[in-house]
Amino acid sequence: MSKTTDWNARYRMLVEELEADGVQVDVARERLLRQHVETPSWGYADSGTRFKVFHQAGAARTPFEKLEDAAQVMRYTGIARSVAIHVPWDKVDDYAALKRRAEELGIAIGAVNPNLFQDDDYRFGSLAHPDEKVRKKAIAHVLECIDIMRQTGSRDLSLWLADGTDYPGQDDLRARKRRLEESLAEIYRGLDPHMRLLLEYKLFEPAFYSTDVPDWGTAFLHVTRLGPQAYVLVDLGHHAHGVNVEQIVAFLLDERRLGGFHFNARKYADDDLTTGSINPYELFLIYAELAAAEERNGGRLDVAYMIDQSHNTKPKVEATIQSVVALQEAYARALLINRKRLEAAQQAQDVVAAEEELLKAFRRDVTPLLVQVRRELGVPEDPLEAFRRSGYAESAARARG
Amino acid sequence: MSKTTDWNARYRMLVEELEADGVQVDVARERLLRQHVETPSWGYADSGTRFKVFHQAGAARTPFEKLEDAAQVMRYTGIARSVAIHVPWDKVDDYAALKRRAEELGIAIGAVNPNLFQDDDYRFGSLAHPDEKVRKKAIAHVLECIDIMRQTGSRDLSLWLADGTDYPGQDDLRARKRRLEESLAEIYRGLDPHMRLLLEYKLFEPAFYSTDVPDWGTAFLHVTRLGPQAYVLVDLGHHAHGVNVEQIVAFLLDERRLGGFHFNARKYADDDLTTGSINPYELFLIYAELAAAEERNGGRLDVAYMIDQSHNTKPKVEATIQSVVALQEAYARALLINRKRLEAAQQAQDVVAAEEELLKAFRRDVTPLLVQVRRELGVPEDPLEAFRRSGYAESAARARG
Amino acid sequence: MSKTTDWNARYRMLVEELEADGVQVDVARERLLRQHVETPSWGYADSGTRFKVFHQAGAARTPFEKLEDAAQVMRYTGIARSVAIHVPWDKVDDYAALKRRAEELGIAIGAVNPNLFQDDDYRFGSLAHPDEKVRKKAIAHVLECIDIMRQTGSRDLSLWLADGTDYPGQDDLRARKRRLEESLAEIYRGLDPHMRLLLEYKLFEPAFYSTDVPDWGTAFLHVTRLGPQAYVLVDLGHHAHGVNVEQIVAFLLDERRLGGFHFNARKYADDDLTTGSINPYELFLIYAELAAAEERNGGRLDVAYMIDQSHNTKPKVEATIQSVVALQEAYARALLINRKRLEAAQQAQDVVAAEEELLKAFRRDVTPLLVQVRRELGVPEDPLEAFRRSGYAESAARARG
Amino acid sequence: MSKTTDWNARYRMLVEELEADGVQVDVARERLLRQHVETPSWGYADSGTRFKVFHQAGAARTPFEKLEDAAQVMRYTGIARSVAIHVPWDKVDDYAALKRRAEELGIAIGAVNPNLFQDDDYRFGSLAHPDEKVRKKAIAHVLECIDIMRQTGSRDLSLWLADGTDYPGQDDLRARKRRLEESLAEIYRGLDPHMRLLLEYKLFEPAFYSTDVPDWGTAFLHVTRLGPQAYVLVDLGHHAHGVNVEQIVAFLLDERRLGGFHFNARKYADDDLTTGSINPYELFLIYAELAAAEERNGGRLDVAYMIDQSHNTKPKVEATIQSVVALQEAYARALLINRKRLEAAQQAQDVVAAEEELLKAFRRDVTPLLVQVRRELGVPEDPLEAFRRSGYAESAARARG
Repeated sequence: MSKTTDWNARYRMLVEELEADGVQVDVARERLLRQHVETPSWGYADSGTRFKVFHQAGAARTPFEKLEDAAQVMRYTGIARSVAIHVPWDKVDDYAALKRRAEELGIAIGAVNPNLFQDDDYRFGSLAHPDEKVRKKAIAHVLECIDIMRQTGSRDLSLWLADGTDYPGQDDLRARKRRLEESLAEIYRGLDPHMRLLLEYKLFEPAFYSTDVPDWGTAFLHVTRLGPQAYVLVDLGHHAHGVNVEQIVAFLLDERRLGGFHFNARKYADDDLTTGSINPYELFLIYAELAAAEERNGGRLDVAYMIDQSHNTKPKVEATIQSVVALQEAYARALLINRKRLEAAQQAQDVVAAEEELLKAFRRDVTPLLVQVRRELGVPEDPLEAFRRSGYAESAARARG
Repeated sequence: MSKTTDWNARYRMLVEELEADGVQVDVARERLLRQHVETPSWGYADSGTRFKVFHQAGAARTPFEKLEDAAQVMRYTGIARSVAIHVPWDKVDDYAALKRRAEELGIAIGAVNPNLFQDDDYRFGSLAHPDEKVRKKAIAHVLECIDIMRQTGSRDLSLWLADGTDYPGQDDLRARKRRLEESLAEIYRGLDPHMRLLLEYKLFEPAFYSTDVPDWGTAFLHVTRLGPQAYVLVDLGHHAHGVNVEQIVAFLLDERRLGGFHFNARKYADDDLTTGSINPYELFLIYAELAAAEERNGGRLDVAYMIDQSHNTKPKVEATIQSVVALQEAYARALLINRKRLEAAQQAQDVVAAEEELLKAFRRDVTPLLVQVRRELGVPEDPLEAFRRSGYAESAARARG
Repeated sequence: MSKTTDWNARYRMLVEELEADGVQVDVARERLLRQHVETPSWGYADSGTRFKVFHQAGAARTPFEKLEDAAQVMRYTGIARSVAIHVPWDKVDDYAALKRRAEELGIAIGAVNPNLFQDDDYRFGSLAHPDEKVRKKAIAHVLECIDIMRQTGSRDLSLWLADGTDYPGQDDLRARKRRLEESLAEIYRGLDPHMRLLLEYKLFEPAFYSTDVPDWGTAFLHVTRLGPQAYVLVDLGHHAHGVNVEQIVAFLLDERRLGGFHFNARKYADDDLTTGSINPYELFLIYAELAAAEERNGGRLDVAYMIDQSHNTKPKVEATIQSVVALQEAYARALLINRKRLEAAQQAQDVVAAEEELLKAFRRDVTPLLVQVRRELGVPEDPLEAFRRSGYAESAARARG
Repeated sequence: MSKTTDWNARYRMLVEELEADGVQVDVARERLLRQHVETPSWGYADSGTRFKVFHQAGAARTPFEKLEDAAQVMRYTGIARSVAIHVPWDKVDDYAALKRRAEELGIAIGAVNPNLFQDDDYRFGSLAHPDEKVRKKAIAHVLECIDIMRQTGSRDLSLWLADGTDYPGQDDLRARKRRLEESLAEIYRGLDPHMRLLLEYKLFEPAFYSTDVPDWGTAFLHVTRLGPQAYVLVDLGHHAHGVNVEQIVAFLLDERRLGGFHFNARKYADDDLTTGSINPYELFLIYAELAAAEERNGGRLDVAYMIDQSHNTKPKVEATIQSVVALQEAYARALLINRKRLEAAQQAQDVVAAEEELLKAFRRDVTPLLVQVRRELGVPEDPLEAFRRSGYAESAARARG
């Protein structure tokens, strides 16, 4: 963003233009002020591919350092209000202290993510493992995470399972499904009434022949069987090529089973790139469904907007800020769709006019609106540029060695 | 197959080998004698791609000619016991006469397939169309098909919907889902108690942005909502790349919602090639799930095994015989799996031993067993070769011009 | 676009902002004034999927009607300067008359496209057919097209081959390659010195097992063997999922073998949707490569920018205008990239800063610049809206029945 | 395999049947006796996914232990005659000693694989890195590997590059291509006259936006530019979905640029499963091209048949034996194709008859032929079963801790 830009003038111009076009800017502004994005603690630590983990100078090494980094993202964007944790990566002796530290830093502890894939016992699965002892161990770990949720004030248990098989015949596919059902039921019984279980699906990796929860249909089947506290979690990188993700979002919203997102981007498989970096229009179309559901729902929607990325070549805090801004932009554009005209065109089966309503909203440079929102949130006009200028990365690199 | 082969000797040898290996050949033989494959009437008529329909000499032109061709497949294989029809492609004045003709030819009329994609009114959908008038027309057509089922003695209504959109925004994805639910409910109420509604899913084509029933999850959601007479139909060519189809089959079997198959093969999209022509091992793995479910179910499974292919470059009857034989082979191999050893290896988490049980069954040349079954069924040992020698294709070409 | 917008003010503001940011708007403006897009004659006629061709009221029925429609796109956009023709779909007795008519309408005849897939003889291929007679027939047809090029003043022969096989074993893959080489060589010898042969590749369809020119590598192999008048043609819908198209464009540009494009969009396979409708960012990235090559090349690049779409649910002229505008937008944004800063960031291996240069250009609402260009071209500020208001579609529907 | 099987009787029966069918068994037998498969040293060491490396008891820890394991595969299969090494994973002080040890164990050192992806300097690439210093370092490493080849008596330099980018704009795609060309040229100049450079391509991973050698077309472009000692290496898991690998093999064979394979299997991406475990028919079709080229070439073909797998859930030696056996089976079946009848059917455009020739060969249970070959090679009839019984794995686990 250019420093000489007269944002006030540009915002006034945008408001005029939008209102002449029948779009209520204030509604959009208010929603953007309330936007809440959750960043992942593991996104601040070193990560990599199966070929190599490249160490980054200044990458967070402890749960507390991760909180500090997450707080930076909050400080510069104003909407990254919470941070998801992962157990045991974020294991601490005193979770109340972790919670307090987060609060001091102006953020909250969000979803708790159990780890069901890095213990040697989980080589052939966790909740669906053929051996009851391993299943019990996995369940106990998740119940421990629920206990941690009590201490951190978390509401969402975010469950991703690496469970699956690598070869045909390796295990009985139906038996695995039944074992998983039983394990999930036991976990579900352990939830407090206000808690939610979010079940994530993924096409493949690390299992290369079958994955026990490979698609939204399987996740949906499980959560409806579990009960009203169970929801589906959509990770943008976990689908086969061609799958229409915004339609899955629309279906889950309609069934009231959309629990949350793991935002990222991908060109090939589960690439875990920064959100919106490959197809920002798809991200906008997903937000178009979310904004429509919010509209129907009186302006509120109980969905957890979490980021889940693996930053191999980008500095971690910068990459996370980029993603938060991408989510802000996608949401802003979606809020500027003239829904009345869209619906009228849809009713008239005027394909071109209906599509043009979306394109018009997507084409908008929403920066003036976002600058306005940022001013009201008390954060810099250009979060990424301000963070890069701040010297935080350099001092973290020094301090963390 | 070589004519000089001593099939009796080879069958005895296979039986000895299998029994030494702990596999009951008689169970396999009896199941194979009862195998039932349904061929599609439209598979005997001219077809093509969007670029060109190539006319084949002797391609069936009328519903009655299609029955004759289907009867040929029955005559040479002994298991292609019924033929699916498509309305209005197979529209006749007197369906009772059609049924009688089929019976004279030794086959039955199987599933009835409504056509919800070739009327100009269906340009923007049928059961999910934004306009109630079109939806009512589509429903009326399906109810007419149910009436035809009464006349033809059919049990299965086989429902494939081309419904979807080509562009973002073209229609409201959630509204389409709700309209489809209502339309399906109205159709379901029209079923007689013994009838089944089979709902097919497809990733894309002819809709290129969203398809209203794009995956098994959506089909499953609809059929469970409808009631116990509704089932999912799996077409092998309707999945995204990488999707594990045998796992979907296992899940649907476990949920008792697998209604039937549309067998074919594909390398790219919905290529509609002859069954087993691209990955015969995948077909075997699907049958491995079916045979296991049969086993658990006392040897019976209420699943419709239908072929759905588009023969652009192969002669149609020959291509259909190839597919029936491929299904016979896949089933035979699946029946020869030593399930006890497979389960033991799975229990022991011995991945290699478990996989080898499948590979051993897949590697088997089951021709001696199939020749034995064919003799008992009273059909030629080599169905394809016998049909090619019969002169039927040539006389059909002459008779049909 | 809102009618009340003060485009002069907005253009001034954009110019100020860009120049403060180090981007030369005048270079971009001049390039946009010279932009040349070619539309396809077949895009104005009825089309469909393999399931159904839906007739559109007013769809062009004759080559001359197609010219009239193409001229409309020129009239409203100012840059759709030529129209590609397809033989025999556009067969006329007098090509000189066709050329004159185009010129009267303010457009030129562009590439000539032979049809090597709709004759019954081409069931098993054309230029790679096992039978020499068929190959000779196909070559003769292409040579006839070259003769038509002489009459229409066309420079580019645009060659798409449906050639391939549906089943393993159907033909010898190496023999097909060699036959194709020979046929292409014979065609190449028939070109006049100023003519170009553009060879298109496609992953699949209508061949479903192997396609003789399935990827850019094969096309590149053939054109380099042919000689300096042969180039590769990139159709955006002809790649496997995940393939990085902008990289192919960069490679072909570097090898000086990029002959042209068939622009369209796809979500699944060769969906032939309007350009930019699925991933406009990818289109921008392709133009970023083109603009960079132009820059290196003194502002000129000898590439044919052709549209190739199949409009099943959208009105044809409107869909074509949408695509021309999408190409204008993508080009405009690509011209506004600050290449110096981009290169500096790349040199510094500053991944975030480099990407942000692209994102900044992509985010820009370039409408004020396009309005300015349109005014200079003497066409409406909002081409689509102006065309929709013009009544042309309605009168064509009346006139064409 | 059943121990009671009378393999002599079964082999005689197979020979009779094949000869009645016009297939020369002796040619097949002789080729199978000469078959040469190379296994990878890294396939005997611990490996994993990006989520976790599971340690296997007895996994090889040193280059010498890897040789011992590779020698086991040779001992039980008789055709795993060499082992590829990877530098620095297999770095030793004395490569002559490594070579001697291999020879003592009855195997040879095969291809040498440089490592251009695990040094911190390679975070943004190696041979195509923007920084000349890094490129020089990478070139020096490869030249060092060429020197190692001189000491180990290796002929093939097997070059896989992780080089690429994660985000649009991160680097200039054309500049990367040019840098890679220069680096490769420098390496090529370092080869001794008898040496070959094998250039591998891969769609993606670990680079997630662009890969510098993403497809066979790019690899082919580079190797033809380099000269007659450069060839393309095909890894079965490195293609986009749907890509016809056997066609690429046929094209490269025809251009005399196929240098070798990395055999493995995949269902999703570069899954590195045991060869033939997902689609054995595809493996057979690849061998059908190889056997045909051999036939044209007087029975010899200068191609390196290397395995490249990552064994996460299977014991490593067992998995490697499975793959060697799968390659033996695929080759055996391909050698039993009746090529005269196949060609006659192709000439007659008899798609069904042509395909049936392949299917007939694929359906054959070639075990009796393989048992015969194994006897002549002096190895056990059932390599996997014999190895499992041998106690080697258990003693390795004890010895290696």
